[in-house]
Amino acid sequence: MTIDAPADISFSIPFVHRLRFTQDILGADEHVLLELLEPSGELPPRVQFWVDESIAQAQPDLRHRLRAFVARHSGRLTPTGNVQIVPGGETVKNDIHILERMLKVFHAANLDRRSYVVVIGGGAVLDAVGFAAAIAHRGIRLIRLPTTTLAQADSGVGVKNSVNLFQKKNWLGTFAVPWGIINDTALLNTLPERDFRCGFSEAVKVTLLKNSGHFSELCRTAELIRDRNMVAAQSMIRISAELHRAHITQGGDPFEMLEARPLDYGHWSAHKLEVMSEFQLKHGEAVAIGVAVDTIYSSMVHGLPRADVNRVLKCLDDLGLTLDHPALHDTETLFAGLEEFRQHLGGRLTLTMLRNVGDPLEVHEVNRDAMRKAIHEVAEFAKAQRTRHEDIALRKCL
Amino acid sequence: MTIDAPADISFSIPFVHRLRFTQDILGADEHVLLELLEPSGELPPRVQFWVDESIAQAQPDLRHRLRAFVARHSGRLTPTGNVQIVPGGETVKNDIHILERMLKVFHAANLDRRSYVVVIGGGAVLDAVGFAAAIAHRGIRLIRLPTTTLAQADSGVGVKNSVNLFQKKNWLGTFAVPWGIINDTALLNTLPERDFRCGFSEAVKVTLLKNSGHFSELCRTAELIRDRNMVAAQSMIRISAELHRAHITQGGDPFEMLEARPLDYGHWSAHKLEVMSEFQLKHGEAVAIGVAVDTIYSSMVHGLPRADVNRVLKCLDDLGLTLDHPALHDTETLFAGLEEFRQHLGGRLTLTMLRNVGDPLEVHEVNRDAMRKAIHEVAEFAKAQRTRHEDIALRKCL
Repeated sequence: MTIDAPADISFSIPFVHRLRFTQDILGADEHVLLELLEPSGELPPRVQFWVDESIAQAQPDLRHRLRAFVARHSGRLTPTGNVQIVPGGETVKNDIHILERMLKVFHAANLDRRSYVVVIGGGAVLDAVGFAAAIAHRGIRLIRLPTTTLAQADSGVGVKNSVNLFQKKNWLGTFAVPWGIINDTALLNTLPERDFRCGFSEAVKVTLLKNSGHFSELCRTAELIRDRNMVAAQSMIRISAELHRAHITQGGDPFEMLEARPLDYGHWSAHKLEVMSEFQLKHGEAVAIGVAVDTIYSSMVHGLPRADVNRVLKCLDDLGLTLDHPALHDTETLFAGLEEFRQHLGGRLTLTMLRNVGDPLEVHEVNRDAMRKAIHEVAEFAKAQRTRHEDIALRKCL
Repeated sequence: MTIDAPADISFSIPFVHRLRFTQDILGADEHVLLELLEPSGELPPRVQFWVDESIAQAQPDLRHRLRAFVARHSGRLTPTGNVQIVPGGETVKNDIHILERMLKVFHAANLDRRSYVVVIGGGAVLDAVGFAAAIAHRGIRLIRLPTTTLAQADSGVGVKNSVNLFQKKNWLGTFAVPWGIINDTALLNTLPERDFRCGFSEAVKVTLLKNSGHFSELCRTAELIRDRNMVAAQSMIRISAELHRAHITQGGDPFEMLEARPLDYGHWSAHKLEVMSEFQLKHGEAVAIGVAVDTIYSSMVHGLPRADVNRVLKCLDDLGLTLDHPALHDTETLFAGLEEFRQHLGGRLTLTMLRNVGDPLEVHEVNRDAMRKAIHEVAEFAKAQRTRHEDIALRKCL
């Protein structure tokens, strides 16, 4: 067993991924949060709340509801001071002093590894608070309550956290499995229209990669989702979140030790478009364009049926996602995104493309002529899309 | 599969633990390091060296040998600037600006996830550089070359890294499996006497917990090890490192998600003694005392045969580890270490004690009367030990 041990030993570390879906987590469904706060030893666990400024402003009673929740369950949890508010979006990830503040507040409240940091916010706030929680005491338990469709359907379920450093997105971070994630519908009620739609481009992406039945369902309900039918929206968030989670728990490489990131379909151009647009394009909007580009490319080079291309473009359009942006016309700058994408993981360039819906493949080179044509076709579709939407708007006015 | 998924999903993440033993890693055994530097894509991997000031001073040709290694293998690796020197001991962990410098140097050298940070140093330097490498890009590959017996036999093999914050040891850190560990004998040649001995108290501990045969071997070779017989020392470092590794790879909880830390035998008092002595006691010396205390306590309360107690005390003595310190007499302050130990992991107090050699048990309470007697007995043994050593020294002079 011991001194004859081999030089390399393969082993596995067990984790539990806890995902809940609720309608009103600080009201009728509060038991779901309470049950995640496992007592530890004889004392009730210490719990601290961190809230995204955007949702705190959009739902002014949220702070009050959190305080009332804590007061109602004083025997079950030990409160640790005020609800903490942090700015949302990239601001929270760009300012290292906010990270310092998080650590100081954790420390002042004597949080330990069996305490809970509950973070309520969009993807950026989940990332930043999650990073602080991951490195304090080598990991305080983190419960995420995502407040955007994007974070509920996608990143909130994942195992990454990060802040920005050296003006590079996500340069600093860790992989850490959160203690739990609660996707709550009431937290989405105040989400602005544009952000609401954004989350569903990742749903298009993940269903295209993983499950043609669910992709068909998304195509059927896309217009309902755009019009904010919450039954349709919740169903698709749940499907997207579960497909993402299955990828993490069954995909075999959640900590990204291999050179491929199979969920990054359409993302090489999406990342670059975000930068080229100086972040006027939101991540979900850029992903919609990137998915459209790689879908057309997949049909040109990898045999994806043309009928599926049309379904994807119609689905994105039905969801209210516009595929238009001036950056799309600067193809050569966009191509620099390929090399940046490779650098991010190191090793060979590895992109995911589609042979069929639900049947992805990995490729290591790109036919640039075909890719130029695919980009051009997306731009043409977007132009027609814009004309069509203007027509519809005009007709409504007449 | 998807929307019917259960709320909790258990899953495992696979890792590889790579451990090598060499005689002269920058000389005859350099292929061992080279082979760990896996190429990634078409370019040779970027490699950066970080060195503990102590070993750089003790082995003045080390920097030159590193440069020569890099020059000899320019086709196999991409050098990334100067060998970086950092202060050893707690200094490197106490100064957050050194952590910042590490991140800046990684960034300036364009290290990515498939680059290598090779760190050569004692446990503190391995901890601090390891933490920086763990959070840059969510993890740059880390190769540890421990330069102390303690780090080779124990912490260097582990999956922790950390720096100190808020004047608390290891407050900030992560769990991360290093890419590889090379335990090299030549790096121990210049280790001061006191540090050399220190590493073996963790060997006493781990063999006591895990394997009575290896404990007997350690008892037999303890005096040889104290006299720096490198064959005996290497053999025991290897046994200790492999037992520690088996605990990580087979023990089921390397990221410490449970409330016990079964390898922390003797550590509740050791941690406290280090602080009470204002770190005059080195970690290995404090562990020797802590192991003696919990061994006597185990015989009083948990049935460990008295003969084994005598073997443990003799073994520690033969290794040249002194069990004496004034802090031992301040029993009540020492007892505060029990609560601090509990707080560190949260939850219930959980200590490891011994029923027999190789047969540990977990306990959740301490009989303080018995513990006082155990501490007193260690102090008495230490007094006799001191007298005996003075006698021996005196006889040598006559």
